[in-house]
Amino acid sequence: MKRIKAIIYGVGEMGRLMTRIMIEKDVEIVGAIGNKSNIGKDLGEVCGLGYSLNVKISNDADAVFSSAKADIAVMSFCSDMQAMYMPTKKCIENGVNVISITEEALYPWTTSPEITKELDELAKKHGVTVTGGGIQDINWISLVSVLTGASHTIESVLGRATGNADDFGPVVAGHFHVGETKEEFESKIREQKLEEGFMGIALESVIADLGLTIKQKKQSMESIIAEEDVNSVALGRIIKKGEVLGAAQIDEMTTDEGIDFRAEFIMKVYQESEDDTNIWVIKGYPDLYLKQEKFSGSIMTCTPTINRIPDIINSEPGFITVEKLPKIRFRAHPLHYYLNK
Amino acid sequence: MKRIKAIIYGVGEMGRLMTRIMIEKDVEIVGAIGNKSNIGKDLGEVCGLGYSLNVKISNDADAVFSSAKADIAVMSFCSDMQAMYMPTKKCIENGVNVISITEEALYPWTTSPEITKELDELAKKHGVTVTGGGIQDINWISLVSVLTGASHTIESVLGRATGNADDFGPVVAGHFHVGETKEEFESKIREQKLEEGFMGIALESVIADLGLTIKQKKQSMESIIAEEDVNSVALGRIIKKGEVLGAAQIDEMTTDEGIDFRAEFIMKVYQESEDDTNIWVIKGYPDLYLKQEKFSGSIMTCTPTINRIPDIINSEPGFITVEKLPKIRFRAHPLHYYLNK
Repeated sequence: MKRIKAIIYGVGEMGRLMTRIMIEKDVEIVGAIGNKSNIGKDLGEVCGLGYSLNVKISNDADAVFSSAKADIAVMSFCSDMQAMYMPTKKCIENGVNVISITEEALYPWTTSPEITKELDELAKKHGVTVTGGGIQDINWISLVSVLTGASHTIESVLGRATGNADDFGPVVAGHFHVGETKEEFESKIREQKLEEGFMGIALESVIADLGLTIKQKKQSMESIIAEEDVNSVALGRIIKKGEVLGAAQIDEMTTDEGIDFRAEFIMKVYQESEDDTNIWVIKGYPDLYLKQEKFSGSIMTCTPTINRIPDIINSEPGFITVEKLPKIRFRAHPLHYYLNK
Repeated sequence: MKRIKAIIYGVGEMGRLMTRIMIEKDVEIVGAIGNKSNIGKDLGEVCGLGYSLNVKISNDADAVFSSAKADIAVMSFCSDMQAMYMPTKKCIENGVNVISITEEALYPWTTSPEITKELDELAKKHGVTVTGGGIQDINWISLVSVLTGASHTIESVLGRATGNADDFGPVVAGHFHVGETKEEFESKIREQKLEEGFMGIALESVIADLGLTIKQKKQSMESIIAEEDVNSVALGRIIKKGEVLGAAQIDEMTTDEGIDFRAEFIMKVYQESEDDTNIWVIKGYPDLYLKQEKFSGSIMTCTPTINRIPDIINSEPGFITVEKLPKIRFRAHPLHYYLNK
């Protein structure tokens, strides 16, 4: 068996963490595409390995692809399919599989159908696979699908996850209306065109996995009001009692089969005792309940993505969303041990 | 597509519930094997359907197999491979697949290697599949394997599940030493040859699924002492403060890969506020945690078993333990919709 060769496409915090994880699973990093301050530096140095990887970070993707033959590109530089389109096209045309933490890529069939279809056809033509992965693959898709394995009938599936707006800085805090007055929030929501949330995108993957058909989708946003003064690191000020502490991004989907889905992604400034949680409640026969807590969202963005690499190289070609891949699991051994071919 | 034809092999509480579930998923019940008081009665009547199924419960397995061609037998009458052996042999020789809630059948490769190997070879010869299923398939195997999909490294995996001894009657309560004094418990434990627990058997399936190799196994039992007087329905008396409220059946396994596994199955008399729980803690990078509560153990014994039927009919032949089957999931449609062949 030969070691897997990877190009790291995006060398931000997640890209650096995924590089370190891949090296510990015996993946050979043969190229690094980045931008800004890291150009020309050695990837090993930038990732804090304490030794050189003999891989210079470049912003010339064509040069990287022509100088090194890779099995897979590991992408982390954008959240939507529009931004992922051109770089992915380049990977495919160079015969390189893609795993990306681009949130929309998790299930982009309905949110960006044209781009996804085009990439799917191109990937099939070149015999490679493109997949979106990340923490959602575990927390919002695979665990949920498996839990439904105990369902005889389902009336509704509810997912509720929380994130701390203070962990993501002022841009994300602004998107979730942190620090606004209730009036500001309501006025903005009236004007705002709400897009499908990341958790809604994951629900679509679950719905596809269960062989159900979406009838209607609805997005909404609800404010969470501070019940006491709370200090926000992201805003650099106290959020006063009565102001907006954050918001729940709500995705609701009905299906032809009569099963209702609802995802509530709550981004707010945490108080001291609060922690990330991920809860799923399935109403039906029987009722089912699952809760995760005490997890690191940033590490869990990276680890399932890297564990997926053998599945993607083994997969039939195309834009293959995670629900079509085998059951995700831990890789005790170097990643190339798990290759079929 | 043709409807799936099933024989219900065991018409106790679980067999009756599985019959009702199968009928609602459009499975045709073509035979019923039972014993004692139900012989000669109609299965529909015994299952409380309110109508006849035109299936008389028989204790003559040979007659049932020769009068009806079935795709699968759904078994629920025993807990160990010894008791399952002859009836399973009969199914296989009649060309009938088997799914059984026999606890040991979940992963009998090390606890009953000879019987399992023989049934495996016989099943291969006759082109059928034999599988052990149940609540463990979800709570102790599939959810755990999927959760490890977020692990880069694992130091240890701990599972802790609880059951109410009062739900299972005096025999089970006795097995878990309910109502003994601490001295009686300790003296009995010294004499008792401890067997691998049901949760330990499930751990072996997870370990196999992750491609790890067991180095050493160890069983132990720890008493849980009542901290106040607790009424026990199973014993029909008050368990006094200081007496044994129940016990934890502990299975520990080390692996060649340095990952330690521990299962604690706690059976005790519940106090009023207590409920069944199932908790998994994975220590490693990153740490992971999962909790289930508010579930019905008896319904969850049946529902995943029935959801597995298409996987078993679709599977390659042999004694196929659940970790080798596709990811378990909900069946929205009649079960025969999920058949490949």
